Amino acid sequence: MGQHTVTSFDQELENLDRLIRDMGEIASEMTQTATRALLYSNTALAQRVISDDVVMDAKQRELDERAITLIAKRQPMAQDLRAVVGAIRMAADLERIGDLAKNIAKRVGAVGGNAPRGLTQPIETMANMVLEQVRLVVDRYVTRQDEALTKLRDEDEKIDIQYTSVFRELLTYMMEDPRNITACTHLLFCAKNLERIGDHVTNIAENAYYVLTGLQLPVQRPKQDEMTVSS
Amino acid sequence: MGQHTVTSFDQELENLDRLIRDMGEIASEMTQTATRALLYSNTALAQRVISDDVVMDAKQRELDERAITLIAKRQPMAQDLRAVVGAIRMAADLERIGDLAKNIAKRVGAVGGNAPRGLTQPIETMANMVLEQVRLVVDRYVTRQDEALTKLRDEDEKIDIQYTSVFRELLTYMMEDPRNITACTHLLFCAKNLERIGDHVTNIAENAYYVLTGLQLPVQRPKQDEMTVSS
Repeated sequence: MGQHTVTSFDQELENLDRLIRDMGEIASEMTQTATRALLYSNTALAQRVISDDVVMDAKQRELDERAITLIAKRQPMAQDLRAVVGAIRMAADLERIGDLAKNIAKRVGAVGGNAPRGLTQPIETMANMVLEQVRLVVDRYVTRQDEALTKLRDEDEKIDIQYTSVFRELLTYMMEDPRNITACTHLLFCAKNLERIGDHVTNIAENAYYVLTGLQLPVQRPKQDEMTVSS
Repeated sequence: MGQHTVTSFDQELENLDRLIRDMGEIASEMTQTATRALLYSNTALAQRVISDDVVMDAKQRELDERAITLIAKRQPMAQDLRAVVGAIRMAADLERIGDLAKNIAKRVGAVGGNAPRGLTQPIETMANMVLEQVRLVVDRYVTRQDEALTKLRDEDEKIDIQYTSVFRELLTYMMEDPRNITACTHLLFCAKNLERIGDHVTNIAENAYYVLTGLQLPVQRPKQDEMTVSS
């Protein structure tokens, strides 16, 4: 295989990385904007998130097409094949993060400024934790920091704990005053979406680690979440 | 390309189809069992769903590996490449259906037999609608009924309507008696999961149609769901 072909394959891998980075930036932006839209009842911001999702979907399609063409044309082996397949998987998770942010944005109207004031801070805290994770996972992948990726999964546990706390607070508001119930059920789905974004970050960290090292991260810890808040 | 090679490629495509069929059966079974476990507070059934998810994940990994190897080894073009990539996408949706069923199963303990009686029928109706869709989409794909696939998407609208009705009933129970709130929030997530299983069926129908015809189904209708039940 000539030098030219090798360089060109690397170039194509870099193109995939660039798309992953773009998608990561859009995912962070969508998550942040959707949360602001929700907490400050801003429908213009919500609309922007809904439009961004179209861009996100287009990026994923572009990445998928490039990756599949690359596999078919070049028949990469071992590490190269792992990198291409890993990119497809990471893109799928980033696209799902966009969908979850869009779903938060779509609930802005239904909550309609009726979110209990006391919930702004805890939801914002949770969103910031999630946002930081989305940024870190993409950054650590594109800068090849495999060891640092392992820490992200532990951080996800903190998000789950914060989610459980928000879940409990939401239940309390609903029990206190039935007029809170409609807005709070939508906030419940929003908090759940943030928690699920955290889960997708964990998936991305696992895939990125596998791409970089060829190894699996150890089997995941059992999740602690709102299901432990029973009856 | 010799006859032997051609036959063998078809054989490998058939293997992918067999895995899709297996995954479809597991997905239906998991959805049905999880719903029964939830409505009749049966933790042994719930546990079975959680174990089945391990089988589902293994099937998806097998399909992914076979598909990627097939692309790398054979460099399929046009329709063949579409079939292999389509199989990867359908498998991802079926695996997600398994995850959603597992999530329902994991809520059985938290609901703990406290589901309002009046909700059994509406949730069961919704689950049956979803179940029928999961079975039909896989059947129509493996028997190459492309026209029949287009109808599945319209059926999904009926699921969304049933979901909105269940959502409203849940809100009513919560407003009537705060003691219903904890169980009802978990049921809300379960109903949402069923609705999302319906969305994955729609994705599968779109992918299957594309694999069989090379055409996209027309752009999807706007969704009608609980977000229209606002303030």
